[in-house]
Amino acid sequence: MISRCSNDNSSGMRPSATERPNAGTIRVSEIFGPTVQGEGAVIGQPTVFVRTGGCDYRCSWCDTLYAVDSSFRELWRPLSPEAIMAEVNKLSGNKPLLVSLSGGNPAIQPLGGLIDMGHEQGYRFALETQGSVTKEWFAKLDNLTLSPKPPSSEMETDWDILSACVAAAGSDTDTALKIVVFDDVDYAYAKDVSRRYPQLPVFLQPGNHTPGTVDDEAPGVDMKGILERMRWLVDKVVEDQWFEATVLPQLHVLIWGNERGV
Amino acid sequence: MISRCSNDNSSGMRPSATERPNAGTIRVSEIFGPTVQGEGAVIGQPTVFVRTGGCDYRCSWCDTLYAVDSSFRELWRPLSPEAIMAEVNKLSGNKPLLVSLSGGNPAIQPLGGLIDMGHEQGYRFALETQGSVTKEWFAKLDNLTLSPKPPSSEMETDWDILSACVAAAGSDTDTALKIVVFDDVDYAYAKDVSRRYPQLPVFLQPGNHTPGTVDDEAPGVDMKGILERMRWLVDKVVEDQWFEATVLPQLHVLIWGNERGV
Repeated sequence: MISRCSNDNSSGMRPSATERPNAGTIRVSEIFGPTVQGEGAVIGQPTVFVRTGGCDYRCSWCDTLYAVDSSFRELWRPLSPEAIMAEVNKLSGNKPLLVSLSGGNPAIQPLGGLIDMGHEQGYRFALETQGSVTKEWFAKLDNLTLSPKPPSSEMETDWDILSACVAAAGSDTDTALKIVVFDDVDYAYAKDVSRRYPQLPVFLQPGNHTPGTVDDEAPGVDMKGILERMRWLVDKVVEDQWFEATVLPQLHVLIWGNERGV
Repeated sequence: MISRCSNDNSSGMRPSATERPNAGTIRVSEIFGPTVQGEGAVIGQPTVFVRTGGCDYRCSWCDTLYAVDSSFRELWRPLSPEAIMAEVNKLSGNKPLLVSLSGGNPAIQPLGGLIDMGHEQGYRFALETQGSVTKEWFAKLDNLTLSPKPPSSEMETDWDILSACVAAAGSDTDTALKIVVFDDVDYAYAKDVSRRYPQLPVFLQPGNHTPGTVDDEAPGVDMKGILERMRWLVDKVVEDQWFEATVLPQLHVLIWGNERGV
């Protein structure tokens, strides 16, 4: 069964495309690319991003508030799978590649049909979610990155749901953990997550402490600070002999700063 | 059969450790770590580097001349596999991890015994070579990165030997191609290599145009130039729709500049 997202605007006012998406319609914040994936298991791979709008979390350091907070809802387009694949194909020149499903939390959208349609056209799909909502269509994904949020986010992890996400992905999907680490407490959390799912590869990523703001058209980036945090995390992993972890920065932030659309 | 390296200093002069390594002895330029692997298929993974001394190539832009040019030979230690594993174990605190065999060209060294010994202790082995010398022990490796050198290196690729390297690795070794790209001519070369071995994943890496010199203890790094070259290469791959390629920078250069030992 493909889960459906609920439309939380059903006031009965003037029916516009943004107010009354059909069942199966996906709320899209932005579609852009091709660029290279900047994080985690598929780092460096050419990809088109489909970023969905809406999130059940409010992480303290969220770097994509424009795809999270409902005050930006009027910027999110309700699109059918057909319309999304048309845009993806336009960007890719009709040549299949990896599609990165991101958010917000893309798991709250009805993405099963999109994945089926894209697969028929030769595309692959990677999705990243915090693991707070599980869907049966996770099993259709080529890559699933579960990125439960550490204490610095001020969110709480529901371990039962996270485990259900792992189970839903099954054995045909390459599943990995990715934990953002800002400090020692986050690091301890990451180790705890890894202990719970020893079968999954773990990617550690230093936190972005200068994510820019929504209105900032040319946000700066504290490159020195970002590199210091990367060195700190590598040192930490080495001293701790956590040799099973993979440590990667946000490559896109190093290359393009905090700009959107790359 | 494990291939043996020849000792190209057999003058019969005062026999010292550096002059008369035993058969099976490995010429080592440096052993350092743990740090994270900065390039290619195992990027971000904690690893100890074993860099061997000596190379059959002289790339115009070589960034490790101290492990290549025989004028540095007195700095290379002839070590047995036992001695190397003792140093690796000391660095890792006896906890197995990925050992990265690098050079110079590590393929001219007799590494089969070292790999067997390390495997018995739980270590994994990744090796990078230009693919100009093939060895049967490539099949023992966990990862083999073949990095044939593009025209900007001023070296010539022997395609028969490169193919023999691919064949020697066989199906139990994860083999990948990694091509350094400085310019359009190098890029065309990378595409040619990829066409010849369509079964192998391809990693593209922008060239380091400021590798520092051997005597430079705190070499600078042109971060702006490195990032520009990365953006150029991503743009190139995207415009060319080469979506099968993975584009990655030298992560260690971004994090630590051109320093040695990290």
